[in-house]
Amino acid sequence: MLAQPFPNYLHDRFRAWKLAKYDDSRAWYARLMSEGQHPRAMLISCCDSRLDTVSIFGAEPGDLFVVRNIANLVPPHAPDQNHHGTSAAVEYAVNVLKVAHIVIVGHSNCGGVEACHDMCSGAAPELEKSTSFIGRWMDILRPGYDRVHDEKEEREVALVSLGHEAVRTSLRNLATFPFVEESVKAGMLTLHGAWIDIANADMYGMDPATEQFSRL
Amino acid sequence: MLAQPFPNYLHDRFRAWKLAKYDDSRAWYARLMSEGQHPRAMLISCCDSRLDTVSIFGAEPGDLFVVRNIANLVPPHAPDQNHHGTSAAVEYAVNVLKVAHIVIVGHSNCGGVEACHDMCSGAAPELEKSTSFIGRWMDILRPGYDRVHDEKEEREVALVSLGHEAVRTSLRNLATFPFVEESVKAGMLTLHGAWIDIANADMYGMDPATEQFSRL
Amino acid sequence: MLAQPFPNYLHDRFRAWKLAKYDDSRAWYARLMSEGQHPRAMLISCCDSRLDTVSIFGAEPGDLFVVRNIANLVPPHAPDQNHHGTSAAVEYAVNVLKVAHIVIVGHSNCGGVEACHDMCSGAAPELEKSTSFIGRWMDILRPGYDRVHDEKEEREVALVSLGHEAVRTSLRNLATFPFVEESVKAGMLTLHGAWIDIANADMYGMDPATEQFSRL
Amino acid sequence: MLAQPFPNYLHDRFRAWKLAKYDDSRAWYARLMSEGQHPRAMLISCCDSRLDTVSIFGAEPGDLFVVRNIANLVPPHAPDQNHHGTSAAVEYAVNVLKVAHIVIVGHSNCGGVEACHDMCSGAAPELEKSTSFIGRWMDILRPGYDRVHDEKEEREVALVSLGHEAVRTSLRNLATFPFVEESVKAGMLTLHGAWIDIANADMYGMDPATEQFSRL
Repeated sequence: MLAQPFPNYLHDRFRAWKLAKYDDSRAWYARLMSEGQHPRAMLISCCDSRLDTVSIFGAEPGDLFVVRNIANLVPPHAPDQNHHGTSAAVEYAVNVLKVAHIVIVGHSNCGGVEACHDMCSGAAPELEKSTSFIGRWMDILRPGYDRVHDEKEEREVALVSLGHEAVRTSLRNLATFPFVEESVKAGMLTLHGAWIDIANADMYGMDPATEQFSRL
Repeated sequence: MLAQPFPNYLHDRFRAWKLAKYDDSRAWYARLMSEGQHPRAMLISCCDSRLDTVSIFGAEPGDLFVVRNIANLVPPHAPDQNHHGTSAAVEYAVNVLKVAHIVIVGHSNCGGVEACHDMCSGAAPELEKSTSFIGRWMDILRPGYDRVHDEKEEREVALVSLGHEAVRTSLRNLATFPFVEESVKAGMLTLHGAWIDIANADMYGMDPATEQFSRL
Repeated sequence: MLAQPFPNYLHDRFRAWKLAKYDDSRAWYARLMSEGQHPRAMLISCCDSRLDTVSIFGAEPGDLFVVRNIANLVPPHAPDQNHHGTSAAVEYAVNVLKVAHIVIVGHSNCGGVEACHDMCSGAAPELEKSTSFIGRWMDILRPGYDRVHDEKEEREVALVSLGHEAVRTSLRNLATFPFVEESVKAGMLTLHGAWIDIANADMYGMDPATEQFSRL
Repeated sequence: MLAQPFPNYLHDRFRAWKLAKYDDSRAWYARLMSEGQHPRAMLISCCDSRLDTVSIFGAEPGDLFVVRNIANLVPPHAPDQNHHGTSAAVEYAVNVLKVAHIVIVGHSNCGGVEACHDMCSGAAPELEKSTSFIGRWMDILRPGYDRVHDEKEEREVALVSLGHEAVRTSLRNLATFPFVEESVKAGMLTLHGAWIDIANADMYGMDPATEQFSRL
């Protein structure tokens, strides 16, 4: 198999964590195993190495069920028998774990959002190819690009607009899942959007009425 | 829009993090924004709320590019124009960020693995429906179930076997991506598999020669 | 040339490292070469053979840009066309590599600090000679000696005080470099001081408000 | 003072080292403190974050007295009352610690060597300014550039040549220190040069007769 033994440096760090931090949670881990997980919320955030959403929300083991994909996107509901990783996670969170909240967390300087902007503005034709997984994944945000695109905006401003729109797009797509809509209407589930400016660690929440983001 | 304002309890935790921990990394975040991320490794792990892989590997901002999906699965290479979130992330990690390692991290008591086992053994017919995103996502592991299934094994043992197989399946599928194979052959990328017993915080590494997992 | 072939014992150790440990990081080294280094921090520590700062901070290849000189000293900013090795390294770290932190790490039982103490207290007149490189290098700490000198202190205590002062002196001198000051004020760089008691492996951090060291 | 408290992430890593690795050497550290250090060799290597010379030579606490500066340079003997950090360390190593070997370790992809090449070839006029500490430090290698410069060489080849010359220059400069020459002639000290290709972890030793580097 095209693989190598586990990297020593990660094993060393794991051992350090186990020695220094695991004891504190040992009984809690045992309970979480015997009783199962009961996370309060599902988080959908980006793969970006600079934004560890579990840490910035001070989450403890068992607190957050977390999907991380490029640009924190939820695709539209599409029961077409294909492999939909994020949709499967949403279904598991809502129908099996019965979380109370789904939170979409976008962020500044997102490489996926930037790729989408460049693709849709014609600056990155290679992303239009059928073989580009990044391009086909960011297609989810293409309608969002069309909605918020403003030729007069400078690139920096446009990327923030599109980043906000990625969060709105995921929230809109979430609402197309029948079991999501049903749980929300039954008062058992709420949906939320936020966007984080990583450089300054400022969080912006989305106001559902205006769909605008303002600093919390 | 079917959404609510950002949850206060998460905002409180964010503020606590910002007050207590952000200062330590403020300049580093600023640099990461101005210079971009250069993570050494990509991690593909599960959404499970009980396993925070960033934390157990002592990772700092910028260290790890992380995908989290149900059962830490990589689907086979399929340039079919559909939305493939995990494949897009692998492409971004290898071709854009140029990570040196991709590490698949499985774990005990995985709900996705359990669902796959029940579906494939006939105990969960609802997961066979075309409308089940969980079932269709876990189809990625169906060939793995066929490989490791042993009727004489007790359920607990079978779930561990299938959990190990999920890691092997992801590694095999990773190798079907041309850009992954190319980078590995060029000596610029290595692939690794591990499986964690959460209750005891024991890590098992996969030996590439035997494809077996042994405690590190 | 006044030289000899490379020592076999060091070559043997290098081969052992390559056989036993290099494989783990082979792809990472390849990436670090093709993509360049992006260390998070610069460390300025002592040459002392007893304190391997890279190892005690669990640093991996690419993590830390390291200067090691006698008594971990930074001289004052002096653009006088002379060869200033440490100043050049600071300039490279801040302006080229754009590190986020500079950390001065002092330590107990420092031979350079002891030499400075003996020179300044009149016990080592040979260090006052113009031909003594050790004396002239430790002149950097002479104003620090004058600040902290207390005739009633016993030698052991005085050496610890002077060791702490060496860290403070380096931090003060760092702040005289215009590009350091500028980066700190822009929030892109932070400066830190620590002192390590090697015998007990205790670390003391400097509190910037009081400039005192307390055990972490 | 323009400083911040000690970074938590480094303190965490220090604690991990203390928990996992310090015990092994506790008695040895105690001995090293009470009896003093007696390193066999002095190493002069580069600040580069990618080359941890202590680790690649499998050195234990007490083994190696280490100077790290940009491009592993030793300036010529110059008893001019200025602060000479590297010269002070050489004096301490030879006259106080009485090491048996001084080893100069150069390496591939050295940013200092590259800066020298660009400065001397006219491609980096900013490095010629009196305010450039990098430029003034790399002046030490300027005569070496003149010696090995060959207009027909491609940049990659030229950088390797100049990297080798940096090692030779340091060895030549070392020999200008009277106490070094004296110890060598008394058979109490030997000088050595090596150059490491980091990407492949190949070591090249300098043959004192030909002054050429060949793979060990």
